[in-house]
Amino acid sequence: MRLCRTETIGPISFYAMLSRFGSARAALEMLPRLARRGERAKTVAAVTRAEAEIELAAVDRAGARLVCWGEPLYPSALATIEDAPPILTVLGEAELLQRPMIAVVGARNASANGRRFARDLAAALGRGGLTVISGLARGIDAAAHLGALETGSVAVVAGGVDVVYPAENRGLYDALARQGVIVAELPLGTEPQARHFPRRNRIISGMALGVVIVEAAARSGSLITARFALEQGREVFAVPGSPLDPRARGCNDLLRHGATLTETAEDVLSQLAAQLRGVAPPRAVPAMSIPAPPPWSPPAVVEPADNDAVFELILERLGPTPVAVDELVRQCQMSAAAVATLLLELELVGRVERHPGNFVSLR
Amino acid sequence: MRLCRTETIGPISFYAMLSRFGSARAALEMLPRLARRGERAKTVAAVTRAEAEIELAAVDRAGARLVCWGEPLYPSALATIEDAPPILTVLGEAELLQRPMIAVVGARNASANGRRFARDLAAALGRGGLTVISGLARGIDAAAHLGALETGSVAVVAGGVDVVYPAENRGLYDALARQGVIVAELPLGTEPQARHFPRRNRIISGMALGVVIVEAAARSGSLITARFALEQGREVFAVPGSPLDPRARGCNDLLRHGATLTETAEDVLSQLAAQLRGVAPPRAVPAMSIPAPPPWSPPAVVEPADNDAVFELILERLGPTPVAVDELVRQCQMSAAAVATLLLELELVGRVERHPGNFVSLR
Repeated sequence: MRLCRTETIGPISFYAMLSRFGSARAALEMLPRLARRGERAKTVAAVTRAEAEIELAAVDRAGARLVCWGEPLYPSALATIEDAPPILTVLGEAELLQRPMIAVVGARNASANGRRFARDLAAALGRGGLTVISGLARGIDAAAHLGALETGSVAVVAGGVDVVYPAENRGLYDALARQGVIVAELPLGTEPQARHFPRRNRIISGMALGVVIVEAAARSGSLITARFALEQGREVFAVPGSPLDPRARGCNDLLRHGATLTETAEDVLSQLAAQLRGVAPPRAVPAMSIPAPPPWSPPAVVEPADNDAVFELILERLGPTPVAVDELVRQCQMSAAAVATLLLELELVGRVERHPGNFVSLR
Repeated sequence: MRLCRTETIGPISFYAMLSRFGSARAALEMLPRLARRGERAKTVAAVTRAEAEIELAAVDRAGARLVCWGEPLYPSALATIEDAPPILTVLGEAELLQRPMIAVVGARNASANGRRFARDLAAALGRGGLTVISGLARGIDAAAHLGALETGSVAVVAGGVDVVYPAENRGLYDALARQGVIVAELPLGTEPQARHFPRRNRIISGMALGVVIVEAAARSGSLITARFALEQGREVFAVPGSPLDPRARGCNDLLRHGATLTETAEDVLSQLAAQLRGVAPPRAVPAMSIPAPPPWSPPAVVEPADNDAVFELILERLGPTPVAVDELVRQCQMSAAAVATLLLELELVGRVERHPGNFVSLR
C-alpha cells in the first residue's frame, strides 16, 4: 500500500518496480536514490507506514475491505489488464466480483426509452448469469444498476468508495452497498475530479467480458469506455438508434466500426457464449504472482544509471506524443534493461508518463 | 417480343434460348417441337405476331416506349444481372435511366420520422448526382420519390406501366410520368398481383448501385429487395433504429449481417465513391450483344433429346430445393450441353423452375 499510494507511481510503474527490485519493500528502499536523479529537483516521498495504517483503519471503520491484485477476490478479468489497479477498495458483497461481468454504460442525459431499455437489458443480463457493472452516473448507468440490483450489480466509482457522487444517486448508492458492491481504485475520502473518470472507465471495461453502450452522443465519455474495451480485447456492444436522435450518434458510430449490434440480452449472451461456457469465471491469477514479465531482462536489483548523458539520449527522443519503448531502445542503442531503468527514474521524478502498450511520452 | 411474352419463358430461359438456337426467330420455330416433350401434355403457344403488334400499338398510344436489353437506353447496371428483363416498358424521361442510380425503399406503414428521413435522404442523394429508384408504394417509397422528384426519380412498378397502384399514389404517379420515369417488366394493362412484387424488387436492386432500406419490419418485402441486392453484388445500406421500434427490426438485422450503417447521404456517397468516380455511369453493354455465355458449349442449333429415359435421369434428381446445374451435370454423367437442353425443355413445359446462380428446382 505504501508503494501503491506514493505519488507518481501509477499501476504500470508499480508492477515495473516490483519486477525490477524484487519486492515492494526493496522498491521503497530504492525510491530516495531514484528520486535524486533527473533534471527537476523533485523528491518522491514514499507514503509512510503511519499514513498507510491510517488508511487501513479508515477502511475498517467504513465497513470496506482492500482487495489486492493477485488475491482470490480480485476480479480475474481485471487482473489481466496491463494497468490493473494494484489495490481496490471494496464496499459490499465482494463475492459478486467472482462472477463473469458485463458493463452497461451510456448517456447521463438519457431518454426515457433509453433508461427503460438499459434497466430491462441489465435485468435480463443478470438473469443470464452476468454481474452488471456500471459507473453510478445519472441516466443509463443508474438504470442499469437498478435493473440488476436483484441479480448482482457492481458500481465502479471515480473517487473514494465512501464518496457519494452524484448526490442524487444516494439511494442507489445505499442499495448497492447493501445488495451489490462498490469498488474504487483511489483511497477512501477522495473527491472525484474530471481526470479521475477516464481512469475509472478503464476499470469498468477491464472487469467486464464486454461493454454495452446504450445511448451515447458523439465524443461522449461512454465512448472512452468503449475504446478501453477495445484496447483490452473486450467485446463492444452498441444499441442502435435513429439517425434523427443525437443520443444515438455515438452508438451508431461504434456499430459502423464493428461493435456488435445489440437489441436484446440474447445478442450479448450469445456473443459471449464461448466465454461463459465454463460454470465459474476463469480464475487465471495465482495468489500474489507477478504480471507477465515486461520485455526487458529478468528481475534483479539494478543500480540507477550514473551518467547524465544517457538521460539526455532518452529525453531528446521523447515528446508529448507517446512512443514505443522498443523504438527508444532501438534508437538509443542501449540494452532494453538500461532504457527501462532510465525511464523508471524519469517517471518517478515526473518527467515521463506511461501509456498502455508499453508507450511513454514526455509529461 | 413474341418470345419474351410467351408463357413459361422467363428471362433466364429467354437468354438461354437465344444462345441455344441463335435467334429469337429460330427459338420461336423450335417452340412447338420442345413443347411436345415432357410428361405433362401441356402446349406452349407462342405469342402471335398480331398479339405483339397490338401491344406495340398500345405502348404507342400510352406515350410509352419499349427499351430492350442491349439497347443504349437500357439501364447498364440492370443489364448485368442474370435475369434482366429482356424488355422494359418505359413511361417518362427514359434518359434518367442513363445516370448512376440508388434505390431507397422501406416500410409501407412507415413512421412520420421515417418518411421525413427518406425524403431528405433521397433529396440529398439526388444532389449527390444519383437517380433515386423506388417502388411507388405507400410510406418510405412514396417519400423517397417525392424527395428526388426535382433531381430525378424512377418508379419500378409491379404491374403494367399504365396501372396506378396503389390508387392513393395517383398524384405521385402523374408527377413521375411528367418529371421522372416509370418502368415495368410486365405488359401494359397488367394488374399487379402478390407474386409480381418480388420479381419487381429484383429490378429495383438490379438497376441500382446500392439499396438503402429505411424502415423495415422483420420478414418484410424490403428485405427481399436487400437479398436480391446481395445476390446481385449491390451495396446494401440500412438505417438503424431503436430496438424498441418494431419498424427498425429488419434494418437492424441487416446491419447485424454486414449492411453499411447509414445516417446521412454521405454514408452512401462515400461508400459508392469508387463506382461514381467516372463522370458517366459505365455503359458496359454493346447494342444487341448476348449475355456472357452460360457454362455449356458454344451456341448451335440443337435437336431436342429423343430418349425419355434421360428426362427421368434428371427429374429424379430434382426436388423443391434448388440444385446447381453443374451438380446435375456431374451426377447425370451427361454433357453440360445435353443437360442444358433437357432442362430448357422441362422448363418450357412448366416442370422446372430457374433460380439465379444457375440453380433449378422442380416446380
